[in-house]
Amino acid sequence: MEERVRGNLIIIGGAEDKVGEKTILKHAAEVVKDREGGLVVLTTATEKPQEVGTNYRTVFESLGLKDIDVLNINSRDEANLDENAERILNSGGIFFTGGDQLRITSILGGTKSYLALYEAYSRGTVIIGTSAGASVMSNTMVVEGKDNEPARKCTLKMAPGLGLLGEAIIDQHFEQRGRIGRLLCGVAENPYMLGIGIDEDTAIRVYPDAHFEVLGSNAVTVVDGSTIKSSNVSELKPDEILAITGVTLHVLPSGYGFDMTKREVLRLH
Amino acid sequence: MEERVRGNLIIIGGAEDKVGEKTILKHAAEVVKDREGGLVVLTTATEKPQEVGTNYRTVFESLGLKDIDVLNINSRDEANLDENAERILNSGGIFFTGGDQLRITSILGGTKSYLALYEAYSRGTVIIGTSAGASVMSNTMVVEGKDNEPARKCTLKMAPGLGLLGEAIIDQHFEQRGRIGRLLCGVAENPYMLGIGIDEDTAIRVYPDAHFEVLGSNAVTVVDGSTIKSSNVSELKPDEILAITGVTLHVLPSGYGFDMTKREVLRLH
Repeated sequence: MEERVRGNLIIIGGAEDKVGEKTILKHAAEVVKDREGGLVVLTTATEKPQEVGTNYRTVFESLGLKDIDVLNINSRDEANLDENAERILNSGGIFFTGGDQLRITSILGGTKSYLALYEAYSRGTVIIGTSAGASVMSNTMVVEGKDNEPARKCTLKMAPGLGLLGEAIIDQHFEQRGRIGRLLCGVAENPYMLGIGIDEDTAIRVYPDAHFEVLGSNAVTVVDGSTIKSSNVSELKPDEILAITGVTLHVLPSGYGFDMTKREVLRLH
Repeated sequence: MEERVRGNLIIIGGAEDKVGEKTILKHAAEVVKDREGGLVVLTTATEKPQEVGTNYRTVFESLGLKDIDVLNINSRDEANLDENAERILNSGGIFFTGGDQLRITSILGGTKSYLALYEAYSRGTVIIGTSAGASVMSNTMVVEGKDNEPARKCTLKMAPGLGLLGEAIIDQHFEQRGRIGRLLCGVAENPYMLGIGIDEDTAIRVYPDAHFEVLGSNAVTVVDGSTIKSSNVSELKPDEILAITGVTLHVLPSGYGFDMTKREVLRLH
């Protein structure tokens, strides 16, 4: 099995609170404050980088962060600029905004900024992502699939992600958009992968020992496929319905966590 | 970046010669003979395991291999049997037949046989796969996509693979089925991934230092996306055509190889 370097990650299901208690972003700010190098906000996912970048700068400043850079990397040429790669490499935290996960991978993939991101991650820089910035954390990421429908093989589209959280499939806006069907489909395709569905205003804080803690106001759904007895995922015709038996499911609010190695729920407080 | 344990792999583009010179299977048999533990033929991908298993047993016997087990693992229960996991763990080589790559991952994923496979791989057991057994080697594997068409975002379906060759996307029956479009699409989605399209009766022999050598009668197409200047892959509407600029492409017959770390063509003989 590959050696997995799982470092510090905060993976947010989108629509996190930016005006009230700001529980999740406050936690993120505290983690970044504990490290040297400040915060880099990467707006690559969005087509409104100015608006989104300014918004996050304001929120993080209100949470006491001083050293904040918004990097509007919008093309592969920009992603190959030494100054951008340097800034990423020397950051204490990197925040991926929402938008389109394929923009992140197709613009950054294989560039100097991309390599700097991995190097920073391996040095302990915390990587934070919301919505599209959450999906992109897995090896194989969900790109699209029909919401609010039974799992159908043909509705799930996946692509190669950043692989920061290797043995999992992340989905976001989870309960709000009725995405259990598509996550079940992804896990049935390879039950070795842990399915992690994160609700809006909810996050997982992942630690290097491969356990995570739930933060925020809703819940995290964990789909553990290692117990699957059988599925018809490999035989489905387009629009046929997935059959899948023996899945293990956990719905975990704040106060709970999960050991991804042992696949065990943790009761934290 | 994750530590990648790339061991010994032989990845075949399907339809390898089984009656003439048998160049590829002969090479595979020689590699297995050099190791203790014999060959395990895994027929999980196919719905005709008896026929396919018997066929490969006959071919490998004709190439002088004596210790051959055909394991018809056809369900997750069978994949969790200790005796099957033990046999895989103690093998010198494991051969994945063709069929459906989703059968391999959905039946084996997360089972005792799956964990035994990784453990054997990390000990140096050579993993061989043809057709579906080739696709399944990557972290994110191609499941389906239209052949003989321009790259369209919507025709490519991917799923989590075995991850034995982590930073690549493998495609098979490559030239014969006109699959350059779908491989370009996959690489554009994340240009960090090396696209490797393997023709029929052609294979790559991957070594632990992450270089490979081309074997067999046709060619291997390497799509290096690290030079991509731009693509519209993240903005495509269904059925719109992919635009992609600056891809580096290599078509390599026998006698050539490729260094996947340096992304350099090797002239071997």
